[in-house]
Amino acid sequence: MLVSALLTSVGINSGLCVLFFTLYSILRKQPSNYEVYIPRLLDAEGKPKRSTFNLVRLIPSTGWVKRAWKLSEEDLLLTSGLDAVVFMRIITFSLKVFLFAGVIGIFVLLPVNCSGDQLYDIDFADLSNNSLDVFTISNLSNGSKRLWAPFIAVYLVTAFVCFLLYYEYKFITAKRIDFFLSTKPQPQQFTILVRSIPVSSGSSVRESVEKFFLEYHPSTYLSLMVVHRSSKLQSLIKDAKKMYKRLTHLQSESNQQKYRHVGLFGQKVDLVDHYEKKLEDIEENMRVERSEVSLATEEVRAAFVSFKSRYGAAVAFHMQQSTNPTEWVTELAPEPNDVYWPFFSSTFIKRWLSKIVVVVACILLTILFLIPVLIVQGLTNLNQLEVWLPFLKSILTITFVSQVVTGYLPSLILQMFLKIVPPIMVFLSSIQGYISHSQIQKSACDKVLWFTIWNIFFATVFSGSILYQVSIFLDPKDIPAKLGVAVPAQASFFIAYVVTSGWTSTSSELFRIIPLTCSLMKKPFRCCSDEEFQVPSIPYHQDIPRILFFGLLGITYFFLAPLILPFLLVYFCLAYIIYRNQFINVYAPKYETAGKFWPIVHNSMIFSLVLMQAIAFGIFTLKKLSIASTLVVPLPILTLLFNEYCRKRFLPNFTAYPAEVLIKRDREDQHDPNMAEFYEKLVTAYKDPALLPIQFSSNTDSLSSPLISDTQEVLH
Amino acid sequence: MLVSALLTSVGINSGLCVLFFTLYSILRKQPSNYEVYIPRLLDAEGKPKRSTFNLVRLIPSTGWVKRAWKLSEEDLLLTSGLDAVVFMRIITFSLKVFLFAGVIGIFVLLPVNCSGDQLYDIDFADLSNNSLDVFTISNLSNGSKRLWAPFIAVYLVTAFVCFLLYYEYKFITAKRIDFFLSTKPQPQQFTILVRSIPVSSGSSVRESVEKFFLEYHPSTYLSLMVVHRSSKLQSLIKDAKKMYKRLTHLQSESNQQKYRHVGLFGQKVDLVDHYEKKLEDIEENMRVERSEVSLATEEVRAAFVSFKSRYGAAVAFHMQQSTNPTEWVTELAPEPNDVYWPFFSSTFIKRWLSKIVVVVACILLTILFLIPVLIVQGLTNLNQLEVWLPFLKSILTITFVSQVVTGYLPSLILQMFLKIVPPIMVFLSSIQGYISHSQIQKSACDKVLWFTIWNIFFATVFSGSILYQVSIFLDPKDIPAKLGVAVPAQASFFIAYVVTSGWTSTSSELFRIIPLTCSLMKKPFRCCSDEEFQVPSIPYHQDIPRILFFGLLGITYFFLAPLILPFLLVYFCLAYIIYRNQFINVYAPKYETAGKFWPIVHNSMIFSLVLMQAIAFGIFTLKKLSIASTLVVPLPILTLLFNEYCRKRFLPNFTAYPAEVLIKRDREDQHDPNMAEFYEKLVTAYKDPALLPIQFSSNTDSLSSPLISDTQEVLH
Repeated sequence: MLVSALLTSVGINSGLCVLFFTLYSILRKQPSNYEVYIPRLLDAEGKPKRSTFNLVRLIPSTGWVKRAWKLSEEDLLLTSGLDAVVFMRIITFSLKVFLFAGVIGIFVLLPVNCSGDQLYDIDFADLSNNSLDVFTISNLSNGSKRLWAPFIAVYLVTAFVCFLLYYEYKFITAKRIDFFLSTKPQPQQFTILVRSIPVSSGSSVRESVEKFFLEYHPSTYLSLMVVHRSSKLQSLIKDAKKMYKRLTHLQSESNQQKYRHVGLFGQKVDLVDHYEKKLEDIEENMRVERSEVSLATEEVRAAFVSFKSRYGAAVAFHMQQSTNPTEWVTELAPEPNDVYWPFFSSTFIKRWLSKIVVVVACILLTILFLIPVLIVQGLTNLNQLEVWLPFLKSILTITFVSQVVTGYLPSLILQMFLKIVPPIMVFLSSIQGYISHSQIQKSACDKVLWFTIWNIFFATVFSGSILYQVSIFLDPKDIPAKLGVAVPAQASFFIAYVVTSGWTSTSSELFRIIPLTCSLMKKPFRCCSDEEFQVPSIPYHQDIPRILFFGLLGITYFFLAPLILPFLLVYFCLAYIIYRNQFINVYAPKYETAGKFWPIVHNSMIFSLVLMQAIAFGIFTLKKLSIASTLVVPLPILTLLFNEYCRKRFLPNFTAYPAEVLIKRDREDQHDPNMAEFYEKLVTAYKDPALLPIQFSSNTDSLSSPLISDTQEVLH
Repeated sequence: MLVSALLTSVGINSGLCVLFFTLYSILRKQPSNYEVYIPRLLDAEGKPKRSTFNLVRLIPSTGWVKRAWKLSEEDLLLTSGLDAVVFMRIITFSLKVFLFAGVIGIFVLLPVNCSGDQLYDIDFADLSNNSLDVFTISNLSNGSKRLWAPFIAVYLVTAFVCFLLYYEYKFITAKRIDFFLSTKPQPQQFTILVRSIPVSSGSSVRESVEKFFLEYHPSTYLSLMVVHRSSKLQSLIKDAKKMYKRLTHLQSESNQQKYRHVGLFGQKVDLVDHYEKKLEDIEENMRVERSEVSLATEEVRAAFVSFKSRYGAAVAFHMQQSTNPTEWVTELAPEPNDVYWPFFSSTFIKRWLSKIVVVVACILLTILFLIPVLIVQGLTNLNQLEVWLPFLKSILTITFVSQVVTGYLPSLILQMFLKIVPPIMVFLSSIQGYISHSQIQKSACDKVLWFTIWNIFFATVFSGSILYQVSIFLDPKDIPAKLGVAVPAQASFFIAYVVTSGWTSTSSELFRIIPLTCSLMKKPFRCCSDEEFQVPSIPYHQDIPRILFFGLLGITYFFLAPLILPFLLVYFCLAYIIYRNQFINVYAPKYETAGKFWPIVHNSMIFSLVLMQAIAFGIFTLKKLSIASTLVVPLPILTLLFNEYCRKRFLPNFTAYPAEVLIKRDREDQHDPNMAEFYEKLVTAYKDPALLPIQFSSNTDSLSSPLISDTQEVLH
């Protein structure tokens, strides 16, 4: 890839960024778009009065950038919870790393690489016609003493990243504990989920659980809530909700639309009456179904068991309860509104097998995804493309077109394919047996991350048949050498990828294209009620892997192609502003994991460090500087030992809270007069919302009666 | 190797077995050998009266064989504890497996192999001149339909072994629970060991621990015992003990020996006086040291903390205590007399690093041990030996000599080298930071086992340079094929190994050569007191790997060379009788782990199954029966899934006891009037024996005073 192609790409994408920023600055001021751009504020403060049109609304303003940049961490914690703070720390962590690496890379490595002459001397006269490879390590000649510069850089950056990782892990652990100590009593702190409950014949699950916990935890046991098979009921509620929406929509329409010609003879039918009748039917079904589900025969062998103290719940969670460890399996309860009700598979073996099936499915998906990746790979290789599709030859000779094709298209197509992956991974995680949305998100996040790493790193790097790639991993000793050959060759592709995919997708994120389109399309049919309006929560499973991927890319490539660093810095600055903003205005947390996903970040950073070191080993071997390649060997060992230490030192605090903290919190509550009230609520906190009495009033006149608001609360 | 060589080996070893059995049958009846052959009975019933000589004592009898065979499991449990029962179950497990495999192997596989003609037709006329290879799978021709016989055998034996493993795991788990429920209250059930105790400046470890547990476990905390740095004191006690022995020995001698000429002028010195003075000096040192050690400055940051109930101790063990998981690290306390006092390294990092160092040392030892193994390997290859040592040529042409050299010597030398390994591994485990003898033994057992597997299996199979071997493991996809080539070629070596090493060493175990020699050598200097006499405990770290190794060998080779099976059956029968006997008469348990080492057995059996399946895959590929090799693939996957299930289903019960069981036991004790007395004892149960007041009386007349017996008790 030539410098000119990169410049084209930078031009296009900077233009797009500015366009998105300008459009956003204008569109966000239009009241009709409030629901898309500031749903959170809308939710908190209610709909502002419909202001009259004025010119200011059309002039782009930058106040929001300043506000987003200045938002303090304390404010973020207060408004969006610890998860948001930890999420933002991924970005600030990356910014710190790439500022440090950037200084080394641009002021030391880049000049050193340019001064090399392995490929050719740099042509300062016609800068834009130089190949990007001139700026990479490939340009240093074999055995050159200048190779010690990247060697020292590798050591320095490893040390800096490890130091920062330690500091962050420590900081976030402390924040987690502080957060726990400062929050009010929460149902999930007092509750565990018990699964695989053995039931003796003749007794119900409820009796069995009650007997067990009264027997073995008499002093701390408070109450229990058995899970029921409610999937049928849930689908009925969904139907009812849909019908109810249609009805309210119809009532706000003109009279004409309320009638429709149906049947052979085209009788006029009052649609409101029709839908009302249908709704009544569904409601009747719901009533019948609810009374059936509440029976003991529909009990699932799982129950939420609440305790009088946090410590009591923790003890029951940590101890193996029964002599058969596959029975009375305990896990920490999620927040009540974090519970994922549809999937409560009952037996231990069933859950275990479904896990295995999902793992296999993930591996298959990851491998099969190679096909689109390979096609994309072909695009960067113009000659090959011309061989495949000869008719393109004439078009591809136009410089601009070829620059767009090599510099922009591949990463865009890849990005589009990658958009499909997160929903698939969420689906796979959801059938894996997790019982909370947050666990599903965390697991999907992990899956997407490793999927991306495998496909973007290894698959595009070792392009070739699937079998060839698998065989590489069966030959682990050759990996560094092969990486050393293949990776630098791909550097320019990844530089372009950061600019195109990174910049554009992040700033288009700000623009919220899909919600905006939906909102625009819906508008004509919209009734005045704001019942459709929902505050979205940040899609961690999608955004964390993306941000991590760029961090990973930067660490791996910083000494190979230091040119990537300024582009990454711009990317993370963009991400910093946009996420702090898409938190102030758009996203609201639905549940709080208190930064439980940080270990994923930590692990992937360690992975990228080791990958970088492996590549460094390969490169130094290829460049015939064997002393350097030998001296790199201790680095991955030390890095892995550091990781192992962090795992022992910090990870346990991300699984459960220590006794010290639990007891301290319990003691504080002992004299709290509000606890009686809290316990009362706790008893019903984990009731399946499908089992709560809901009634969609069949009388359309009373649509805004309190009953409905009750319904709304339950349905959200 | 020819059949005749095998027959020679069988002859020699059967002869040796009979000899050992006969010698044992006679020697055990001599009262002078009681301490070697029946120390346990001696300990229990006291020394029998010196009977007059009679002829019966010289006639070998076989009553003991019958007694050993008939000993019921209940009796064994009563007399030797659960560990002995589980140990015996390894042997009965192997017997069952090889009976099953033996029937298939001898009646199906052996005839099938003989009927093959890949190598050459079997020569029935001169049976002893056939190569052993005729009886192996190598004799089946490529693509032969007869290869389906070993294929089916592999499936059958895998299923049988898995079934048996499941059954045994379940049985032993149940036994463990029963054992726990039936034992009296034990100090270790109520105690945990706390390490890495943070101490604020100005306070002692004792104060720190007391404050912490009174704060967070006020209702269950009972007492604590801080560990002190007592290594200097321990060595002083050792010296004193030695001196005391010399003194008692001297007093039983004649008057002449009590004096010695010392100094330039050859003054006569009363040695008794001399030693007495020395002993007094040491005792004075001990007193000073003991008072110093008892100070808070000599406290180690570790303490045994006892609780009022088993459940209380378990809760403190299972919960992470502090926000820093590397502080207040808890582990289950060992039995008081199982505690390994010398090594209480203090900080978390120090222990963690020493663990890493030991692992590295183990790997180095395992690899360097290859050198003697390779030399032994040379012995089976006579031609090579003749090239190395040409002067042996004439001797080696004698048939009998060559048969001894190829059939007997290699395994004997190997066996001798292997004898050094267990003590080294025990040493390595002891500096790894374990604080109980049983943990050290268990860890050493693991190390010896993997050491043996690596060296005997892989190193002798893939004979070649170290680098070549390592490279094989970096090429995992080729392992089955390489195993398929190399393993059958080694089959005859292993058949010989079972006969020579297995038979002889097991029956010589019965003979207790080393203790017997020691006893015979000491006799002339022995005084009448029986203070030297100790009941040995079974060396699990040495005997479990040996037995497991033969089990492993049998499973791996059964379908390759079914001829190994009858010899293995004989071996396990021998082991069965001898260990049941070396339990009745010799070994007494020093501590009880309640069968905690069974998971090692389980894992190694799973390993051997997977190894066997990998070899089967390799063989079927080589023999060009690709359908069979494809159909073998699901087998290791299923086996590993089975293992994973067992790990979830049974393993947790081998780490700690479940809440259910603990609470049941605690409730039973609630009304036990003996508990007050037990709690009193519990407070001092974990006092370092070095810190107990010991006095070696300086007055030689009172050597048999109660003080001494007290000393003895402490020293043992």
